[in-house]
Amino acid sequence: MATDNPEYKTSSTPAAAPAGVDFFIFDVILRFLLFAASLVAVVVIVTGNQTIYLPFPRPAKFRYSPAFVYFVAAFSVAGLYSIITILASLFVKKSPALKTKLLLYFIFLDALILGITASATGSGAAVAYVGLKGNNHVNWNKICNVYDKFCRHVGGSLAVGLFGSVVAVLLIWLSAYSIHSRAPR
Amino acid sequence: MATDNPEYKTSSTPAAAPAGVDFFIFDVILRFLLFAASLVAVVVIVTGNQTIYLPFPRPAKFRYSPAFVYFVAAFSVAGLYSIITILASLFVKKSPALKTKLLLYFIFLDALILGITASATGSGAAVAYVGLKGNNHVNWNKICNVYDKFCRHVGGSLAVGLFGSVVAVLLIWLSAYSIHSRAPR
Repeated sequence: MATDNPEYKTSSTPAAAPAGVDFFIFDVILRFLLFAASLVAVVVIVTGNQTIYLPFPRPAKFRYSPAFVYFVAAFSVAGLYSIITILASLFVKKSPALKTKLLLYFIFLDALILGITASATGSGAAVAYVGLKGNNHVNWNKICNVYDKFCRHVGGSLAVGLFGSVVAVLLIWLSAYSIHSRAPR
Repeated sequence: MATDNPEYKTSSTPAAAPAGVDFFIFDVILRFLLFAASLVAVVVIVTGNQTIYLPFPRPAKFRYSPAFVYFVAAFSVAGLYSIITILASLFVKKSPALKTKLLLYFIFLDALILGITASATGSGAAVAYVGLKGNNHVNWNKICNVYDKFCRHVGGSLAVGLFGSVVAVLLIWLSAYSIHSRAPR
């Protein structure tokens, strides 16, 4: 039944203050993980270009597939977003009165980023799966037996992208729990 | 600086109570929209089977593509989830003390559902785009010039699935705003 107002709690309920600080640190850690995952995902898929000579050159590039282009664009946005929100978190750390408001905006934006990264991972994985297994029903041949390096990079990038999407879910959970912990029971 | 505690507000701040009730109605409406979108998305893609005779029969079914199977599974889960959460909302309506707790659980689960539906829509759209345009770089032929009905159903189902994903984002926004409105400023 405590009001949990950060401006008044320093003298009355000191036990709640460290918990809020811990949430904040977890938040910055998760955002840094999202940034790292986005950076790795983009770099790994972009560096996966491979050219096969059979006998004339046949290159494989991520930009040949609209799904992979969307994947790169989505995780570029997610990476930029995580940098901006880390800076916003650090800036707001000094003025705790803004924190509850910022947590709400973070949930709003995190939900958008989750939608973008999850759909990008899904679309990339769908095309990668066709490349890996092919589809006999419509005569789409598998290509990963030829473009081994390209497919390894795509697979690694997708795994990191999935990790980034999970981090986005955790960010929403953490912000929601933080706001909830400030609300009266 | 008001505490907004629903157990104590009836006498002191009656203006906040109707707002909470409105949020609740919007929540149920959004969950019903998610249920409707999930049902329509699943039914439309499942009924899209088409057999072409050229001259031997070549059927096109959603279950020939792992991406479409995932799409159907994801939106079946989303449909069931929305029924369960509508019932939970209606059940909790009579005991407002549980509401803030339930809103938190709703955000947790809504984030998962958003991840599932967004990735399913992305994967379905990626395969559908290959079917629509083909990919010359890897000799994947377009198939929508042959399977017109199948592709119409897939496209309609994906559009409804995208709508369902947007509804999942709105559900997170609404729950977050509801919890935030109960927290002290």
